[in-house]
Amino acid sequence: MSINMNTSLNTHHHPISRYPVPELKDLPEDMRSRILEVQEKAGFVPNVFLALAHRPAEWRAFIAYHDALLLKDTGHLSKAEREMIIVATSAVNQCLYCVVAHGAILRVYEKKPLLADQVAVNYLKADITPRQRAMLDFAMKVCTASHTVGEADFAALQAHGLDAEDAWDIGAITAFFGLSNRMANLTAMRPNDEFFIMGRVPRPPKTVA
Amino acid sequence: MSINMNTSLNTHHHPISRYPVPELKDLPEDMRSRILEVQEKAGFVPNVFLALAHRPAEWRAFIAYHDALLLKDTGHLSKAEREMIIVATSAVNQCLYCVVAHGAILRVYEKKPLLADQVAVNYLKADITPRQRAMLDFAMKVCTASHTVGEADFAALQAHGLDAEDAWDIGAITAFFGLSNRMANLTAMRPNDEFFIMGRVPRPPKTVA
Amino acid sequence: MSINMNTSLNTHHHPISRYPVPELKDLPEDMRSRILEVQEKAGFVPNVFLALAHRPAEWRAFIAYHDALLLKDTGHLSKAEREMIIVATSAVNQCLYCVVAHGAILRVYEKKPLLADQVAVNYLKADITPRQRAMLDFAMKVCTASHTVGEADFAALQAHGLDAEDAWDIGAITAFFGLSNRMANLTAMRPNDEFFIMGRVPRPPKTVA
Amino acid sequence: MSINMNTSLNTHHHPISRYPVPELKDLPEDMRSRILEVQEKAGFVPNVFLALAHRPAEWRAFIAYHDALLLKDTGHLSKAEREMIIVATSAVNQCLYCVVAHGAILRVYEKKPLLADQVAVNYLKADITPRQRAMLDFAMKVCTASHTVGEADFAALQAHGLDAEDAWDIGAITAFFGLSNRMANLTAMRPNDEFFIMGRVPRPPKTVA
Amino acid sequence: MSINMNTSLNTHHHPISRYPVPELKDLPEDMRSRILEVQEKAGFVPNVFLALAHRPAEWRAFIAYHDALLLKDTGHLSKAEREMIIVATSAVNQCLYCVVAHGAILRVYEKKPLLADQVAVNYLKADITPRQRAMLDFAMKVCTASHTVGEADFAALQAHGLDAEDAWDIGAITAFFGLSNRMANLTAMRPNDEFFIMGRVPRPPKTVA
Amino acid sequence: MSINMNTSLNTHHHPISRYPVPELKDLPEDMRSRILEVQEKAGFVPNVFLALAHRPAEWRAFIAYHDALLLKDTGHLSKAEREMIIVATSAVNQCLYCVVAHGAILRVYEKKPLLADQVAVNYLKADITPRQRAMLDFAMKVCTASHTVGEADFAALQAHGLDAEDAWDIGAITAFFGLSNRMANLTAMRPNDEFFIMGRVPRPPKTVA
Repeated sequence: MSINMNTSLNTHHHPISRYPVPELKDLPEDMRSRILEVQEKAGFVPNVFLALAHRPAEWRAFIAYHDALLLKDTGHLSKAEREMIIVATSAVNQCLYCVVAHGAILRVYEKKPLLADQVAVNYLKADITPRQRAMLDFAMKVCTASHTVGEADFAALQAHGLDAEDAWDIGAITAFFGLSNRMANLTAMRPNDEFFIMGRVPRPPKTVA
Repeated sequence: MSINMNTSLNTHHHPISRYPVPELKDLPEDMRSRILEVQEKAGFVPNVFLALAHRPAEWRAFIAYHDALLLKDTGHLSKAEREMIIVATSAVNQCLYCVVAHGAILRVYEKKPLLADQVAVNYLKADITPRQRAMLDFAMKVCTASHTVGEADFAALQAHGLDAEDAWDIGAITAFFGLSNRMANLTAMRPNDEFFIMGRVPRPPKTVA
Repeated sequence: MSINMNTSLNTHHHPISRYPVPELKDLPEDMRSRILEVQEKAGFVPNVFLALAHRPAEWRAFIAYHDALLLKDTGHLSKAEREMIIVATSAVNQCLYCVVAHGAILRVYEKKPLLADQVAVNYLKADITPRQRAMLDFAMKVCTASHTVGEADFAALQAHGLDAEDAWDIGAITAFFGLSNRMANLTAMRPNDEFFIMGRVPRPPKTVA
Repeated sequence: MSINMNTSLNTHHHPISRYPVPELKDLPEDMRSRILEVQEKAGFVPNVFLALAHRPAEWRAFIAYHDALLLKDTGHLSKAEREMIIVATSAVNQCLYCVVAHGAILRVYEKKPLLADQVAVNYLKADITPRQRAMLDFAMKVCTASHTVGEADFAALQAHGLDAEDAWDIGAITAFFGLSNRMANLTAMRPNDEFFIMGRVPRPPKTVA
Repeated sequence: MSINMNTSLNTHHHPISRYPVPELKDLPEDMRSRILEVQEKAGFVPNVFLALAHRPAEWRAFIAYHDALLLKDTGHLSKAEREMIIVATSAVNQCLYCVVAHGAILRVYEKKPLLADQVAVNYLKADITPRQRAMLDFAMKVCTASHTVGEADFAALQAHGLDAEDAWDIGAITAFFGLSNRMANLTAMRPNDEFFIMGRVPRPPKTVA
Repeated sequence: MSINMNTSLNTHHHPISRYPVPELKDLPEDMRSRILEVQEKAGFVPNVFLALAHRPAEWRAFIAYHDALLLKDTGHLSKAEREMIIVATSAVNQCLYCVVAHGAILRVYEKKPLLADQVAVNYLKADITPRQRAMLDFAMKVCTASHTVGEADFAALQAHGLDAEDAWDIGAITAFFGLSNRMANLTAMRPNDEFFIMGRVPRPPKTVA
């Protein structure tokens, strides 16, 4: 099985990072197999996997943290809701990579082509539920003024059935993508062109050859 | 000729404004003909034309101002560059309508499907020229701290061949869409669904029936 | 009838705009007649009429918008209250022209020589009614964070008998003068000397020659 | 000699402080004689003298500090320039009392009826010298972000002939009136009506009875 | 009795002020005796006494104001609570001298070695009572946005038994140390090394020779 | 070997986290052995190891990331300099845990008892080298406005011999502790009492029993 050679190609061949980007073949086996697995699922390799691979030890910790927060099955947050948190807080941090990439994933998960742009520009006017609004209010506070988080904030979540563990989830996703936003901004990480359009148009039906 | 009845329909039939929206047939002739003209060109009626029509006198002034700034042929700003200014400053003002609608127009004008999202999230990392970067720096200053605009700002534009008249254009577009952003936010104006996808995928070739 | 030649003279002959200012005689008839009408009433030509006349198409839209908001007779806002909104929000935008010119008009309308300075420096401590305080709170939100305007803000106005149409008026005046503030700051527009003193001292009684 | 009984009267008899205001006759001799001296010169007692007299020990320290900074003859700042600093920084702190009272004194000192309003709304556009602009830039930095004051700021003053002692003067006046602004805001201190008009119109010539 | 010659010595002999620091022997008698008195009590001369002595008239007013606020016996604020206000607001103003020196005094007064650091970094998470939290909330408002202080803020104090005179105390301490913070930042005033450790470790028991 | 039972005890028995804190004996072997190793070195278990252990998968990723950044031997940043970055940025984020714990480590590494407090309150006035000042300027930009990081910022580091890899180190440490700050604030994580005093006084010489 081979990596799609178009993976790191972007419009007009812009570099995907200010830093050197390793070739897939030069990466340690554990990193390469994880990346191939993502490519298999998404159809392409999201640039974050390659850009951060410049530092293997940090890459492994980053991916482990990412998976711990986004792949877990416990708690009351749907996977789409976790993506909403990422999109809303990444917009505040003005991180192009995360707004675009996770906006795409949000569209795919929710099958709502408008939602990601709404959440990115002004979540207060987005087509979301009051519970999701409370979730994003909490995330925004962690993102911009975490030192002020207090009992009233936990109570506001509780009023929507979101308990202290959910609060941890919201806060940890916000905190982790705050790290991700800063690394993406630092490295001038470029989102794959594919993300911009993903989830905006209905997928063509799969055909059998 | 009749108005497309789907004009004001949006996903899940969300209202397009917090205020009453007049029916096209009830509008004065000058307003109706202008709106039909836009529909003819765009294929649908942008919601701003209907939402602001709640106040005909303000509507007429708004449209006249809009046209004076965006339809003029003088100066060194391309039409796409004027849209860049709108997208960048509307993002700062967190105006969903203008980011989405003018983002669409920017994509169409520039035929660059990624540009609008780049400019909206962080114009400092967008695929634009140094001249466009200077243009947006000036626009941002007018948008967020106009009282500090001074000689050095005009000189920075001049260094890219943008003269005082261009500075007026940049500033006036920023100022006018600052008004528009505030009205859209006040009225909870909803962008047409069509704008979200426009300019992201190649247009199908026109066919003859 | 001729224009008062002192119109554009200011203390120490400071220019009234960074841009060329047209002579009244060179303006199109509709603009000139409107300006002469203002001069007739005020005794001098407010500099905004001349400074913005550098761009006739924008001037016409500006004046039309201005008149639609400030000359209308409907709604629950008095003319003085509309001026309060202008003074308070222009102070936030640090626009000398609008604070001074509309401060003068506010003093004249309300016959309260202290009010404009109070509203400009800190409307929270001004001699205004609770209803006017609510009106200015709403205006300030539109001015500084319009994306956060929501149901609670409309309800706060309603508690003082100000309905949704009044909210539109408050928001539109704020938005329009936000535009005006930015243009005045961009052009370094200078308030007429007359405005600084207007309404501060009792008018001398009119005498018959 | 007796105190003018109209001293604490204001338009519509608004209180001059949220706190009890002592009567002149009840004050200790040193305070009373200082207040009478001011009244002699100004023609009325500025409300700050009475409002702060609620706390005699603090009053004495306040007046001593005030005098040390504003009555001294050393250094390169004129008395009018010291008032400019007060007006500009008090506007940032949104202190009605100091903007109005010291704006009046500034007008009187400089004999420029427009200057105080210009400095209060946006000193960057005021009719001041480059040296005064540098002085106010330094004051603003002390006012809003004193922890960032560094060598470059002292050098910027030096370029205009303002030495380290002048920097101290600018900073100390800013710091002291920052205290004054906060006390005036806390106590809802009301400027005397007289200040609003003072220095705006030519004084009538003194007549001999 | 003689002054400890190590007084103005700091680690690595850093200057204690950007300005000339007078020698104790050259100061007027009233200043010298006050400084010796402090040295007697503290075991060293806090640098603020020497740094500000560069300007005797201001020094005297400063000390008088300081004493009026911190030595008074009236009101409901303990001496430790007054120090809490200083530490919390000086941290916001990023004043090293006051955070370190008054943090030391707070530790000594309260005999709680952790309290000063807690209050300096985030008073919302400090080991304080709800009444102290309300006190610091009020102080922070005076410190950062005094123009918004209103009835609700006084009522919030009242709910904890803190009356209008206590509000004045809180506000005046905040205002006075806002002045002090700005002077310390302007002069690059350096805290004595002794303050950093004071109150962190139990005092050795006094021994009899 | 057994865990010191006083580990999670703090002054007055305050909880160390808003969330349940696992007992060391209940943790998986890999976590327990790592924690015991830290205890061996520090003499106590820093609370972050126990508080975050509430979520083992996140804990493992957190520790791996921490180690990748702080234990590596490459690059031009000393271990003390990495701690400076943590202290300065954690102070901006108002995170008590990180300011206190990493302040302690900074003192120990640098053997400068004053440095941590200086850096926490205002690094611009701290006793650091120009190179360290540039390092902290870069860190602050990543911390507060990462979307504005650009070529000029990398060049400013380069001028002090800090290359792009060092920039990554500075940015990644800032980003990672931004995550840590938010988790500590969310969980109300409490620093161990030991940290407050550590490195402030000379260690007693080790004695042989």
